[in-house]
Amino acid sequence: MAGLKQVQRQTGVALWRQIADRIREAISAGAYDETGMVPPETGLALQFGVNRHTVRSALAALAQEGIVRAVQGRGTLIERKERFNFPITRRTRFTAGIGDQAREMRGLLLEEAKEEASAEVARWLGLKPGAEVIRLETLREADKRPVSKATSWFPAERFAGIGEAYRKHESITKAFAELGLVDYVRATTEVTAAHAATADLADLELTPGAILLIAKAMNTDLDGVPVQYSISRFAADRVQFTIEN
Amino acid sequence: MAGLKQVQRQTGVALWRQIADRIREAISAGAYDETGMVPPETGLALQFGVNRHTVRSALAALAQEGIVRAVQGRGTLIERKERFNFPITRRTRFTAGIGDQAREMRGLLLEEAKEEASAEVARWLGLKPGAEVIRLETLREADKRPVSKATSWFPAERFAGIGEAYRKHESITKAFAELGLVDYVRATTEVTAAHAATADLADLELTPGAILLIAKAMNTDLDGVPVQYSISRFAADRVQFTIEN
Repeated sequence: MAGLKQVQRQTGVALWRQIADRIREAISAGAYDETGMVPPETGLALQFGVNRHTVRSALAALAQEGIVRAVQGRGTLIERKERFNFPITRRTRFTAGIGDQAREMRGLLLEEAKEEASAEVARWLGLKPGAEVIRLETLREADKRPVSKATSWFPAERFAGIGEAYRKHESITKAFAELGLVDYVRATTEVTAAHAATADLADLELTPGAILLIAKAMNTDLDGVPVQYSISRFAADRVQFTIEN
Repeated sequence: MAGLKQVQRQTGVALWRQIADRIREAISAGAYDETGMVPPETGLALQFGVNRHTVRSALAALAQEGIVRAVQGRGTLIERKERFNFPITRRTRFTAGIGDQAREMRGLLLEEAKEEASAEVARWLGLKPGAEVIRLETLREADKRPVSKATSWFPAERFAGIGEAYRKHESITKAFAELGLVDYVRATTEVTAAHAATADLADLELTPGAILLIAKAMNTDLDGVPVQYSISRFAADRVQFTIEN
């Protein structure tokens, strides 16, 4: 059973979640490539020293993530091995970033609000705290599966109507273009990781306790003026970031 | 109680861990800057709807991470607010990367082995599978706190003696220099996040279930020949990556 590490009890992380992690790693490492299937539940239960119910919970979580699929009478098929690869470059765009890894890309506008910039948002956008900004909550899907949820702030005066433009085009790049900003660049990205908060679980179709890769990013126009500050939360199981230097 | 999100039951992540996460976020967001202290246990227990024992477990985990410190008769002092910032650039070096954020940097050699390159290692280093490589397991500390653990592979012939050189200099850059490689660059970095595996918990002084930021990186000499492939596991609570484009 190459690549499978043992699970730990009393860790603060449920056994089914640890086992789901281990199976996901094994799938990604190609441990089951020969059969294209996850080993039978009884074998996994024996291997991890847990009961079948726990293994079943782990496989159900992986099925919900789209990694495996249970087929009546046959067992558990591996649906997808690889994470989406998201390059972080000066010209990072979400759609182009995922590129031809997905057949269908969607961008959904969940919420739009005009509000006063917090100290953090003002600092990133080079505004005075309290200045008017437009906040968009968006959800990105690749092949009908949610990949990331983002909160973005824009200077309100310059980008009035960006919510409507995003809803129409499902793309920040195209929404910017409609509002007269034909090109922009990624200036800074900060990457951290954390457990998903409640508000993101349902939208990202994650099982509770799942990990997020979080990218805080600031984009500017070609004169270096900030045009967008965003906090994007990616399902860590579905994405990796790549930095080419 | 700005910035504090509610905790969830039956999520597969223990309540004390969720509460530790929420308090860490609040500290980082500056929620307790006025007093420099975490609110009393009784207040936190009330706020999160849990008993004091659970709050105490959360604070103990944060103390182990060096974020807070219990002071007899006074309460829980905030020791450190910010994560170390680790820039990912073409010239990324660990010591220079953390730079003046720490007073003291250490690099410890945990293990050294000569082995045959796996398919993955061979692919990254541009070698044939089975070619001889040297593997180093290293631990990096900043101000006596472990920050990351790395597994690195080097072509064995070109870098014979790199383990000994690393032990002496506590730096890959200086070990390379001693072996005649005076300059090198970061070619590619892949970033993912995952729960920490058992083997990393003790070395990184993490509480079980903690999250790692994982960077797979390949370095080349100035002719583009791969000289190092490494998988570095950073305690996600202590580090953020920054990409400047």
